[in-house]
Amino acid sequence: MGSLRPGDAGGADRFGPDGPGGTSRLQLGDAGEAQVDCTFCGIVAGRLPARVVYEDDSAVAFLDIRPLRRGHTLVVPRAHVVDLTAEEAGQAVAAVGPVLQQTTRLLIDRLPADGVSLLQANGSAAGQEVLHLHFHLVPRWAGDCPLNNWTPAADASVSLDDLHLQLAPPGS
Amino acid sequence: MGSLRPGDAGGADRFGPDGPGGTSRLQLGDAGEAQVDCTFCGIVAGRLPARVVYEDDSAVAFLDIRPLRRGHTLVVPRAHVVDLTAEEAGQAVAAVGPVLQQTTRLLIDRLPADGVSLLQANGSAAGQEVLHLHFHLVPRWAGDCPLNNWTPAADASVSLDDLHLQLAPPGS
Repeated sequence: MGSLRPGDAGGADRFGPDGPGGTSRLQLGDAGEAQVDCTFCGIVAGRLPARVVYEDDSAVAFLDIRPLRRGHTLVVPRAHVVDLTAEEAGQAVAAVGPVLQQTTRLLIDRLPADGVSLLQANGSAAGQEVLHLHFHLVPRWAGDCPLNNWTPAADASVSLDDLHLQLAPPGS
Repeated sequence: MGSLRPGDAGGADRFGPDGPGGTSRLQLGDAGEAQVDCTFCGIVAGRLPARVVYEDDSAVAFLDIRPLRRGHTLVVPRAHVVDLTAEEAGQAVAAVGPVLQQTTRLLIDRLPADGVSLLQANGSAAGQEVLHLHFHLVPRWAGDCPLNNWTPAADASVSLDDLHLQLAPPGS
């Protein structure tokens, strides 16, 4: 999809492998410090433009520049954390809680929307492209086109008891 | 889809309007107290069975009984909160942070999966059926079938500047 233009800050998860944040995950620190090559750190720091709709001391919400629905908003913690597997992920999730709440209310009240879908990707297999933890808040309206594919994959039907043992063996 | 069988506790968001948790949102309290008719409060309290893969004092992760992918897991706060618009939503999100982190790691390490998609629905327009805040952690593998529909809806292309003004008017 080519590189990010300065005025385009805010898109995420729908770029090609060389898009913004396309640095190898291993090259990015996970220490909560701002990363010079991270688009969302740039927005948090005010170095890159964004249409901020809500923010507090811990997190920022801004319009996605490639919206799936009218009002599609991204919420990011101010501290740089790659994804939910990061050492500081627990704190990062806590940091976005109030902004997720206030932004969901904002979208429902002011658009107004009937509901909101939250999406978040961990790893390129899940579609993550910008390697700074971010939550998509996508406004929904009754009867709009589906956002998630709720069709189970073929491999979903394995024994749940076997899976349970695999994930949480007795004594673990 | 009919009523929930005791052994089936754990499904969410893919039931019909009269499925589990199908009580009107207005009938459910939001005060963080366990709700007698809430499937997930039942699981948290141990009254309903579930295949728990990880838990701490604040949240529980258990296998979804209608998995979209192998290892599809739900994470819920122990305290009853309906969705992200609830008064206590900020605390509820904070409460699930460490369990989201540990369960994402578990799925990637033990299945093993290449990545994890997180989905969460607010309101029936977004597909929410069980009215207790819950996060779907769906394991992903490189090249698996798409989980999210990233095609923008027709109304997504309205002016972002107009939307910005609508959501965050100057001086708001």
